[in-house]
Amino acid sequence: MIFPQVDAFRGGENLIRVVGHRGARGVLPENSLIGFDFSLSIGVPLLEFDVVLTADDVPVITHNHRLHAPSFRDAEGLFLTGEEPKVSSLTFEQIQEFDIGRLDGHSAYGRRFPDQAQMDGVRVPRLMDLLNLISDPKNGDACLMLELKSDPDLAHDTRYREKLVGRVLQEVRARDLSSRAVLHSFDWNLLEACQRQAPDMPSSYLTQLPENADDVGEDSSKAVCPDFRGRRDDIPHLVKQAGGSLWCPYYADVTAKNVELAKDLGLCVAVWTVNEPEDIAKMIALRVDAIVSDYPGRVQRHLSDLGMVW
Amino acid sequence: MIFPQVDAFRGGENLIRVVGHRGARGVLPENSLIGFDFSLSIGVPLLEFDVVLTADDVPVITHNHRLHAPSFRDAEGLFLTGEEPKVSSLTFEQIQEFDIGRLDGHSAYGRRFPDQAQMDGVRVPRLMDLLNLISDPKNGDACLMLELKSDPDLAHDTRYREKLVGRVLQEVRARDLSSRAVLHSFDWNLLEACQRQAPDMPSSYLTQLPENADDVGEDSSKAVCPDFRGRRDDIPHLVKQAGGSLWCPYYADVTAKNVELAKDLGLCVAVWTVNEPEDIAKMIALRVDAIVSDYPGRVQRHLSDLGMVW
Repeated sequence: MIFPQVDAFRGGENLIRVVGHRGARGVLPENSLIGFDFSLSIGVPLLEFDVVLTADDVPVITHNHRLHAPSFRDAEGLFLTGEEPKVSSLTFEQIQEFDIGRLDGHSAYGRRFPDQAQMDGVRVPRLMDLLNLISDPKNGDACLMLELKSDPDLAHDTRYREKLVGRVLQEVRARDLSSRAVLHSFDWNLLEACQRQAPDMPSSYLTQLPENADDVGEDSSKAVCPDFRGRRDDIPHLVKQAGGSLWCPYYADVTAKNVELAKDLGLCVAVWTVNEPEDIAKMIALRVDAIVSDYPGRVQRHLSDLGMVW
Repeated sequence: MIFPQVDAFRGGENLIRVVGHRGARGVLPENSLIGFDFSLSIGVPLLEFDVVLTADDVPVITHNHRLHAPSFRDAEGLFLTGEEPKVSSLTFEQIQEFDIGRLDGHSAYGRRFPDQAQMDGVRVPRLMDLLNLISDPKNGDACLMLELKSDPDLAHDTRYREKLVGRVLQEVRARDLSSRAVLHSFDWNLLEACQRQAPDMPSSYLTQLPENADDVGEDSSKAVCPDFRGRRDDIPHLVKQAGGSLWCPYYADVTAKNVELAKDLGLCVAVWTVNEPEDIAKMIALRVDAIVSDYPGRVQRHLSDLGMVW
């Protein structure tokens, strides 16, 4: 099957795509509408973000399954302390009480993004809010790398998986945007459900070798991602067999060999999350199709200096 | 005379102001409407920028007196080479042919801002375009640090000075914004003309000690700025005597002593251009009133981590 949105992520002779990671996490609050809007406004129409279900089954855009203390403040403006509440235990209305406009620089997570603007009154958006944003004709070239986050506590529950996928698809279809999104996950079971419920939409397979440490302050993918130990250069075959259109490896896991294999198999290779200048340069040299970055401007600059387009 | 806009730049007990330098040069093309809009949208309503007159006497927003080769591209998309044309030799319409959306990373100037987004179709704005932007009721708290750039070739020509000041004031008054701008310059003669033509508006005195090197790729201020060699801690007195409301020293020139003196004299102290984390921390410790930065988000973050407001 040919999916037009896969071509939006595909590179070419002199072309590498730039994907704004959680909007533009290095510049603006992650997974916020203002961050998505920034990425769109600088000419980076490919947006990566994360979807989780609330207690009242609203697909919302946030990365972790629990409200992430370094970026969630309560009604008094204080960063959360103690056990982080689960998104699935709160209604959308309850989640709106939290402000995600700032990062706690006293946390290890906060220290990773020292340039992120600090704002007040920024709320967790619904998936629908972003779909509305890209429905604006001026954003007609926007495409979504929609990550479905599989709750590790529920990953083996078939009904949960079907519901998560079903709710996401319901919203995407309500805005007639199934040709402008790829369904993206670490959870191969979830992607199997996606393919069954939405054969008209491409799947994007996230992978990370277990020897690579998880990033500080982020939910681990290890609970739901298959274990590829010792099979690094074979992953593209597995993605292809599973029915994938995109392969999205952690950038440290790619080699000239597995990128070439993936391309030979017709997969589109989008690496994440590439922020350091030397890593951006390496990924360009490997001719991946797309680079997912918290600093989309920085990637544009590398490409511009090389006379390349994105 | 009391100028309400000076208070917009004044710090306080737990308050240091953040001023977006040329919009937000570290993030977006300098002196561009998208850069100003970014600064406003992250809650940094104080905007610093530079005004120069075109051949047809249109006040436009650009830093140098000549089209700056590392950020000006011609209609073919190529960065300028050879002698840079003077802004004053071109009409506004001619200047609109150039694109200021990218920075040449092969230049020393370009290397200073590696994260700046790379865009196409960005034009030099008129002062009027920015005045229109801040006239939008949603930007009602915006205040301008409007730098009048004195052409070194014409700095001693009284008629030139009067015309530059007159044209700028004409536009500011046309939008009824004289209570939301400070008139800012290195050229003390020009500021004298400002005070005569606009006694209802405050003057902001830029200073830089000659021992501090000019920044790479920028017009030198030495031709028009008085020589303060050996008088570092006396500058606030001179600014006060000249009728200044704000004193805007290069950040490396401030000391606990001259900041205290300036405050005792009732001057508002706004330091520029403070980008490195250690320098931001030093300026906060010195309790300046305002920090002018190419990375307003980075300054917000320092202040937020200290529990301060801006």
